[in-house]
Amino acid sequence: MHTGRHFLQIPGPTNVPDRVLRAIDMPTIDHRGPEFGRLGLEVIEGCKAVFRTGNPVIIYPSSGTGAWEAAILNTLSPGDRVLVAETGHFATLWGRMAAKLKLEVETIPGDWRHGADPGEIGARLAEDRGHVIKAVMVVHNETSTGVTSRIPDIRRAIDAARHPALFLVDTISSLGSIDYRHDEWGVDVTVGGSQKGLMLPPGLGFNAVSDKALAAARGNSSRRSYWDWHEIIAANADGYWPYTPATNLLYGLRESLAMLQEEGMDSVFARHDRHAAATRAAIRAWELEILCVDPYAYSSALTAVVMPEGHDADRYREVVLNKFDMSLGTGLAKLKGCVFRIGHLGHFNDLMLMGTLAGVEMGFALAGVPYRKGGVGAAMAVLEHTVPPGKHHMKDEDAA
Amino acid sequence: MHTGRHFLQIPGPTNVPDRVLRAIDMPTIDHRGPEFGRLGLEVIEGCKAVFRTGNPVIIYPSSGTGAWEAAILNTLSPGDRVLVAETGHFATLWGRMAAKLKLEVETIPGDWRHGADPGEIGARLAEDRGHVIKAVMVVHNETSTGVTSRIPDIRRAIDAARHPALFLVDTISSLGSIDYRHDEWGVDVTVGGSQKGLMLPPGLGFNAVSDKALAAARGNSSRRSYWDWHEIIAANADGYWPYTPATNLLYGLRESLAMLQEEGMDSVFARHDRHAAATRAAIRAWELEILCVDPYAYSSALTAVVMPEGHDADRYREVVLNKFDMSLGTGLAKLKGCVFRIGHLGHFNDLMLMGTLAGVEMGFALAGVPYRKGGVGAAMAVLEHTVPPGKHHMKDEDAA
Amino acid sequence: MHTGRHFLQIPGPTNVPDRVLRAIDMPTIDHRGPEFGRLGLEVIEGCKAVFRTGNPVIIYPSSGTGAWEAAILNTLSPGDRVLVAETGHFATLWGRMAAKLKLEVETIPGDWRHGADPGEIGARLAEDRGHVIKAVMVVHNETSTGVTSRIPDIRRAIDAARHPALFLVDTISSLGSIDYRHDEWGVDVTVGGSQKGLMLPPGLGFNAVSDKALAAARGNSSRRSYWDWHEIIAANADGYWPYTPATNLLYGLRESLAMLQEEGMDSVFARHDRHAAATRAAIRAWELEILCVDPYAYSSALTAVVMPEGHDADRYREVVLNKFDMSLGTGLAKLKGCVFRIGHLGHFNDLMLMGTLAGVEMGFALAGVPYRKGGVGAAMAVLEHTVPPGKHHMKDEDAA
Amino acid sequence: MHTGRHFLQIPGPTNVPDRVLRAIDMPTIDHRGPEFGRLGLEVIEGCKAVFRTGNPVIIYPSSGTGAWEAAILNTLSPGDRVLVAETGHFATLWGRMAAKLKLEVETIPGDWRHGADPGEIGARLAEDRGHVIKAVMVVHNETSTGVTSRIPDIRRAIDAARHPALFLVDTISSLGSIDYRHDEWGVDVTVGGSQKGLMLPPGLGFNAVSDKALAAARGNSSRRSYWDWHEIIAANADGYWPYTPATNLLYGLRESLAMLQEEGMDSVFARHDRHAAATRAAIRAWELEILCVDPYAYSSALTAVVMPEGHDADRYREVVLNKFDMSLGTGLAKLKGCVFRIGHLGHFNDLMLMGTLAGVEMGFALAGVPYRKGGVGAAMAVLEHTVPPGKHHMKDEDAA
Repeated sequence: MHTGRHFLQIPGPTNVPDRVLRAIDMPTIDHRGPEFGRLGLEVIEGCKAVFRTGNPVIIYPSSGTGAWEAAILNTLSPGDRVLVAETGHFATLWGRMAAKLKLEVETIPGDWRHGADPGEIGARLAEDRGHVIKAVMVVHNETSTGVTSRIPDIRRAIDAARHPALFLVDTISSLGSIDYRHDEWGVDVTVGGSQKGLMLPPGLGFNAVSDKALAAARGNSSRRSYWDWHEIIAANADGYWPYTPATNLLYGLRESLAMLQEEGMDSVFARHDRHAAATRAAIRAWELEILCVDPYAYSSALTAVVMPEGHDADRYREVVLNKFDMSLGTGLAKLKGCVFRIGHLGHFNDLMLMGTLAGVEMGFALAGVPYRKGGVGAAMAVLEHTVPPGKHHMKDEDAA
Repeated sequence: MHTGRHFLQIPGPTNVPDRVLRAIDMPTIDHRGPEFGRLGLEVIEGCKAVFRTGNPVIIYPSSGTGAWEAAILNTLSPGDRVLVAETGHFATLWGRMAAKLKLEVETIPGDWRHGADPGEIGARLAEDRGHVIKAVMVVHNETSTGVTSRIPDIRRAIDAARHPALFLVDTISSLGSIDYRHDEWGVDVTVGGSQKGLMLPPGLGFNAVSDKALAAARGNSSRRSYWDWHEIIAANADGYWPYTPATNLLYGLRESLAMLQEEGMDSVFARHDRHAAATRAAIRAWELEILCVDPYAYSSALTAVVMPEGHDADRYREVVLNKFDMSLGTGLAKLKGCVFRIGHLGHFNDLMLMGTLAGVEMGFALAGVPYRKGGVGAAMAVLEHTVPPGKHHMKDEDAA
Repeated sequence: MHTGRHFLQIPGPTNVPDRVLRAIDMPTIDHRGPEFGRLGLEVIEGCKAVFRTGNPVIIYPSSGTGAWEAAILNTLSPGDRVLVAETGHFATLWGRMAAKLKLEVETIPGDWRHGADPGEIGARLAEDRGHVIKAVMVVHNETSTGVTSRIPDIRRAIDAARHPALFLVDTISSLGSIDYRHDEWGVDVTVGGSQKGLMLPPGLGFNAVSDKALAAARGNSSRRSYWDWHEIIAANADGYWPYTPATNLLYGLRESLAMLQEEGMDSVFARHDRHAAATRAAIRAWELEILCVDPYAYSSALTAVVMPEGHDADRYREVVLNKFDMSLGTGLAKLKGCVFRIGHLGHFNDLMLMGTLAGVEMGFALAGVPYRKGGVGAAMAVLEHTVPPGKHHMKDEDAA
Repeated sequence: MHTGRHFLQIPGPTNVPDRVLRAIDMPTIDHRGPEFGRLGLEVIEGCKAVFRTGNPVIIYPSSGTGAWEAAILNTLSPGDRVLVAETGHFATLWGRMAAKLKLEVETIPGDWRHGADPGEIGARLAEDRGHVIKAVMVVHNETSTGVTSRIPDIRRAIDAARHPALFLVDTISSLGSIDYRHDEWGVDVTVGGSQKGLMLPPGLGFNAVSDKALAAARGNSSRRSYWDWHEIIAANADGYWPYTPATNLLYGLRESLAMLQEEGMDSVFARHDRHAAATRAAIRAWELEILCVDPYAYSSALTAVVMPEGHDADRYREVVLNKFDMSLGTGLAKLKGCVFRIGHLGHFNDLMLMGTLAGVEMGFALAGVPYRKGGVGAAMAVLEHTVPPGKHHMKDEDAA
């Protein structure tokens, strides 16, 4: 029997703010009425600010995998070749989906401990004189590994190869947590989901699209209906959808977009960076290994921790769940049992992080995992030395 | 400036019960944890009871149109011929989706005032000696017209023609409001949505499937991923999904399924029948025309009312919205301006219906629509004479 | 088993708006912290606007009866004589409380069908040359009868008698529903409660006080602590209380004050007047008797209906509750069984009123109460002819 | 700008569980209807189990100070002498209230670092041959100091002195956190409040009463009305109140009583003991002083920490609030600036405690308070070594 609040420290879904939950809890309205139209326009505009694009953002009632599929079906046709950078389990799954959707999938293998290599991508594209490759697919923040990829460098590599491939990027676990710029970085389709940095329950998927992606979609006769951008974009002009959208989740989206704006995106990113740094300090103090081996690729949204040889990560996670009511992320696919993942993204703060890390450290003791004491103390030292200056103000949420 | 509660009397989304909204308002949990598994199993089992099937029910994070697409993509391939009974706008849209998904769509025309004709369907299938037609697609309750179709009779017609076509039925606006039996009626894929009789916000789509449909899906190499049944059914065995499902809407689903069970499905259907009868009595007293011309096909979920010649239904609806804060359903497609629709489904009761009908009647006066007074009184007479016997008990909701 | 929304048509507690309930549902904060201070100042200021006073308003965690007691204990001492106008059950109860608190209570008898008579009060005070009477106690809106008293006229009568008695007025069921002006009308202590026109759950009591009342309190050594104004007023200067206040109800108060301000107090009062007029039209059409016999004293918050001879109001109310899930107000004290009361105050609108009146009318039929049909129609006619001009806008609540 | 959840670590109000907040968020019902009667009976019975009494428990819409006043006004009359054990600020305030209510207050002085001394109380009563002392007033858990008093020993001391004085005990901050037994310990009036171990927002006060207290009340002609037990007890027989009770807080009470029962009172107390022990371990590791100097009197609900000489506790608390969004308790009255208080009661768990203690420790660093590092580590060691055996199960709340 647990008491107090559950610590949901998987790398998504994240802890949903009370403001967002209460917004979702309001009565459903007519999805064809004037009030809905205002809501629709507001959330669509708000999404553009988060994706940093002036182009359309399409919002689906779907999981993130739905938004993956939408990116593919709108821009690519059966038989098209795509180049997937294997950064981890989710990149692999996205590639597997592409294959299931009858694309030719070419994978640049990875060790799941580094980000996508812009040089390798550029080299492969340069080889592809005939422009057989129609799209490059990269996961910005690999949720299975806690490794990020340098999207602007990959863009530069594509450009340097003078290759016309579309650039599709998954930001499901980075959006709203790690700096991302759809337009400036020249991405053609950015895929997002609601349940991570956007601080919503799962149930919404997103596609931000470039003009080039829209042109590709127009020319693409690939069979699709639900995911088809054009009808949605047309209806979105007035704030509506061509079907009944997930109204209550959109209420929540309006609220979470407002919260991000109130905090300021730069502050949001700095906060995630700081919590990630404190987490890594803890892991080093425990003398455990961070899965990501490239310091420039550390994720600010989550950190994957390598278990000492001979210790099962899932047994450890079970101890933490049973004894401390905290959910940690499992190791996925080939990492099963070998790593666990600490989510430190979304609606989060210093003391929630400290509770999290204390649970991780106490879990080691209880599960008999060898570690050096002191991780929590090391994280505290990082936080103490990096507290933002100025007076903090309590949020309306606290009093509303 | 409106005060009091909005009357959401479109034929869906419907008025969501407080119990359901509060359930949705609870913190999101780990979609891979043990508690989620229990939730998953519970809602899947509960859905089977509502669809009246012993076979799998697949729940998607999607709109109802997503569940339409899932029904098609799993069982049919490009070039397959389907027979669509044109009962109204939604049947037309479903057919149009089938065409967009590259099926050959053959439509049995309808006047949008009758249900699908089992005889015509049977005759067409009997002609199809080569079994070119792969599926028959029927909307059980046409949300655009308030007309139902006799699913068991259509099943019998298919059987009489000894035709192997799959039988796909849309129950988006009937499920949980009008008697429906997936297994007993021999339906192969039943399509449902969350935001009507299931009393949830929009955001979940459903497919109930027969063994024959599952076999068709296994043999169908048609490209699909998100909508693919097999991975979902496999993961569902333990109560999980192969992606992050819409956790909080599933909390709501658990609650709404419990509410339907508490009321008893027979009582639920009888309640809808009674409210529909009272609504029709009102319309007749107003000397207006019910769109549905077949008394055996009247919908118990909604009623479409034909506007007197020369009067625009949407202008009237706007008056009702502005003056009485009630949303009525618009006329769709060729019915635009000609009809409006009264939703009387979902979480609803006698006094909500009377408020609704009073708003409709007062709206006529304010909008200058010719009518005879007395509709409200006529509806009251029906309700008075059909009050269920026995003592009613207040719901837990009222006191919790 | 009831479905849909309960109709809570007692004259308070009233239907609490979702905005208010959701505000109350937010986490409790430190009642000594800076955020609380801001909340405290905001609700105290907002209350002044509703009571229309520039003087302090004291907010208690209490029922309305607590605020009654506070008015007495602060200004009067054991043995003091008070003059109570017997307008109905609540005036009687307030007088009885005064007696229990060891005041000498002198009652001006009433027939429970008229408001307090300014002439009688003035005459009694004029007789009281020795100024033995220390206070005049009047209920502005008698919740047990639906009869109002003319507060400004009573003030004039007191003044005309040149009598120094304090003027204590109960506005528990009028505040936020019927025009009331603490300062302008020269009231010394106004007593209020949260659960009527303020649209909150029960749990807060209010005292608005004049300078004269404050002076009386300073000079009054009567034993009291919880109800003592002075410590509270002192702490209120910074937005705090000398004990832990009912934080979450104060969140709700902030929201309900905002809603009243958004609608505008004049619109709020006009809305209540209009609904009361429609209700009376219904009662007359039913050929039933309104308890209040003075048209100038009709309450806009509730209407008490006299049952036909030989019919028990409570049996009728039970039928309405069981068959239509609507709570109507019981007849209190000597009116038990003889009247029932229809609350039409608070967060309310035309269609909720029509549902209410339809339930009342159908209840007559089911309970075998003799009535003429047509009350609902008569009310509709009133509403139709008095719809406010201009376009109404949907509230944020509907979409938030 | 804070993000994530506020840490409300004052010794009440405490963190209110989502289950309780959502229960409070349900629509208000008729306080005279049948459903309310069932609710009333249920919460009254549930309270008896928590107070461990077979006698009535009276629930007031009030703060805890209201329940203090009720205990006094029902059993004592002006001029009665009471003996108050000065354990800290709240004992002093309760005594001051008694004086304000015109009792003769005799105080047994205390140093605010020990509990009430049964020996001194017994000696004073033994001296009082004439039985002038009518009541002994003791605070079970001094919220201002984190010191408890041994209620059974005081009872024995009263009995040993063969003194008829009533025994009044304040359990506002112990009830639901620290073992307490109204009947077994022979207490006459137990005073409680909603916002501590009962895990509710503030707004409800409680009196549990013995037969002797009821007899005293019957014989007591002291003026009172709101607080008078008899009318309430009479109405409570059917689950009602003689006024409009705080309905929505009662919904919350039903839920919090259910949560306490689900966890089991023994587990609840053991949990609080364990968290208090861990907190003290942290304080000792920091080389700071615990205000309570008697290890047998340590509070399991809160711990007061003495600030090092020359450091202001409130400036420190402000740093913690501004930098870590955590509210700590201030030093009250003569302890102002000298101590701060850590609340570790109510809906709480190990990781919330660790977040709390980490915030306390980091706050020392940021505020320049001298301390030895390692308090957090010391607390972790305690928690690790005292984790309850057996598999914990996630609460319904986590998934509902």
